[in-house]
Amino acid sequence: MAHPVERLAVIGLGLIGSSIARAVKARLPGVSVTGYDADADVRDVAQQLALCDIIADRADAAVTGADLVILAVPVGGMAAAARAIAPGLAADTIISDVGSSKASVAEALAHALPGHIVIPAHPVAGTENSGPAAGFASLFEGRWCIITPRAGAPEDAVAALTTFWEALGAKVDVMDAAHHDMVLAVTSHLPHLIAYTIVGTASELEEVTESEVIKYSAGGFRDFTRIAASDPVMWRDVFLSNKDAVLATLQRFNEDLTVLQQAIRRGDGARLEDWFTRTRAIRRSIIEQGQDDAAPDFGRKH
Amino acid sequence: MAHPVERLAVIGLGLIGSSIARAVKARLPGVSVTGYDADADVRDVAQQLALCDIIADRADAAVTGADLVILAVPVGGMAAAARAIAPGLAADTIISDVGSSKASVAEALAHALPGHIVIPAHPVAGTENSGPAAGFASLFEGRWCIITPRAGAPEDAVAALTTFWEALGAKVDVMDAAHHDMVLAVTSHLPHLIAYTIVGTASELEEVTESEVIKYSAGGFRDFTRIAASDPVMWRDVFLSNKDAVLATLQRFNEDLTVLQQAIRRGDGARLEDWFTRTRAIRRSIIEQGQDDAAPDFGRKH
Repeated sequence: MAHPVERLAVIGLGLIGSSIARAVKARLPGVSVTGYDADADVRDVAQQLALCDIIADRADAAVTGADLVILAVPVGGMAAAARAIAPGLAADTIISDVGSSKASVAEALAHALPGHIVIPAHPVAGTENSGPAAGFASLFEGRWCIITPRAGAPEDAVAALTTFWEALGAKVDVMDAAHHDMVLAVTSHLPHLIAYTIVGTASELEEVTESEVIKYSAGGFRDFTRIAASDPVMWRDVFLSNKDAVLATLQRFNEDLTVLQQAIRRGDGARLEDWFTRTRAIRRSIIEQGQDDAAPDFGRKH
Repeated sequence: MAHPVERLAVIGLGLIGSSIARAVKARLPGVSVTGYDADADVRDVAQQLALCDIIADRADAAVTGADLVILAVPVGGMAAAARAIAPGLAADTIISDVGSSKASVAEALAHALPGHIVIPAHPVAGTENSGPAAGFASLFEGRWCIITPRAGAPEDAVAALTTFWEALGAKVDVMDAAHHDMVLAVTSHLPHLIAYTIVGTASELEEVTESEVIKYSAGGFRDFTRIAASDPVMWRDVFLSNKDAVLATLQRFNEDLTVLQQAIRRGDGARLEDWFTRTRAIRRSIIEQGQDDAAPDFGRKH
């Protein structure tokens, strides 16, 4: 497929899938969108919200005639979704996805769809909300979408997928799936694991009540609760599918935490101050590169 | 002092001190504000910004005639600031502070100012920015200020300080300093330590470049960089002054992290999903109680 996408099928209509459907409607009005979700309630909501031109009742029917299919389901459900669409696929249909881990998804899709054109991808965007009503058309604007083609993937398919994501406002990078998984372990998976941990820790202490934790959360804790409110099934699957990279970065985090713990215990203020001064510079770079709001406190109202 | 505050002195004109000065100007126009900072450059900026009615050249001169003095310096500098103001204090002056740890500050102030009325306090508010230009008048609106009087502290002084903070828009709680330190270790100090750690870890990995970490930070990492951009000296002092509570909560965090690490290694998806489902509820409570923005992604622009 060298021509641009004309018929899109989105499988899975949660936050990401429904945002893709909305973004296509807003930015690519000539493209027809067929949606499907394994959950009948989600299909009903998608119908009411008029997210797609057609909501199909079966996955294989949804992809019939599509030139691009995007699987927007939790990574643990990719293989099953791929098997479900297989009967409806044409030989030149591009199958892509939005999973947060890529090596295991690439493997699962290649295995489930032998002989098909599979180009895995990951738009690095989202919010802590889930479900078809949580999506919005501008979610991908200015965010990166990482495409991880396997060796030998057809270049025109990679180009078509790149064009598609750029049309939704994203910036596209191409990299190896294994490197993607290490990068995202650091920038996304480890932060989520840490946030989930600390929110759980804080809610289970004997010395401090949960109501106190909530009341005084503006001291920093509330920042972590946003991430720890993300979809539980999606994140369960991310950790299980990117186990090695997550555990490797977690080990590095634990080493560093032990160093700071020791500095506190020993009263080594110089080491703490030095560490805290270095981390300040990272924030500055993120803002300079447009990856976060420059307003203090994330621009929260005061 | 049963009458309301008429003459306020603010010692230390960083984010918090300058916000107090601005809030008083905005909400208590009848109160005169004298400011002082040990750093001559900060005094110059405060003068240019007209933060206070008077910027004094010496700490003891700044507090002369004040009925309320607020020390807004890093907690490690409280004792020195108290000694510096001592010659200017009257017997009925209330001395308070804004330090993020309270037991050690209460001890330091009582020791430096024997016979004076010392009522420690902690407004649970702030941003990641520092310095006199970073302050703003609405910083304390809807936030909690925790007052931690020692046994035998004069009730009318506690009442006057309560009235003062409420006039700036804060809600006031009174509690024991040791309990404050445990609560804040959980809701503020541990989150800062974790954020500082992970931002340092991410910036020092061999496998992933710093520029990749910055580029793909929207996957979650950027949330941590805000907190890890907070003032290094202030936070060095917080950890050193609240060492025991921080290390105790850190131990609990480490236990929980080990449990989740093991669940990932063993592929125990049920345990992960259960944990992640519980933490979601905490976020909901924080939003319901007005302690954070209900808008997705902190209301960031998309």
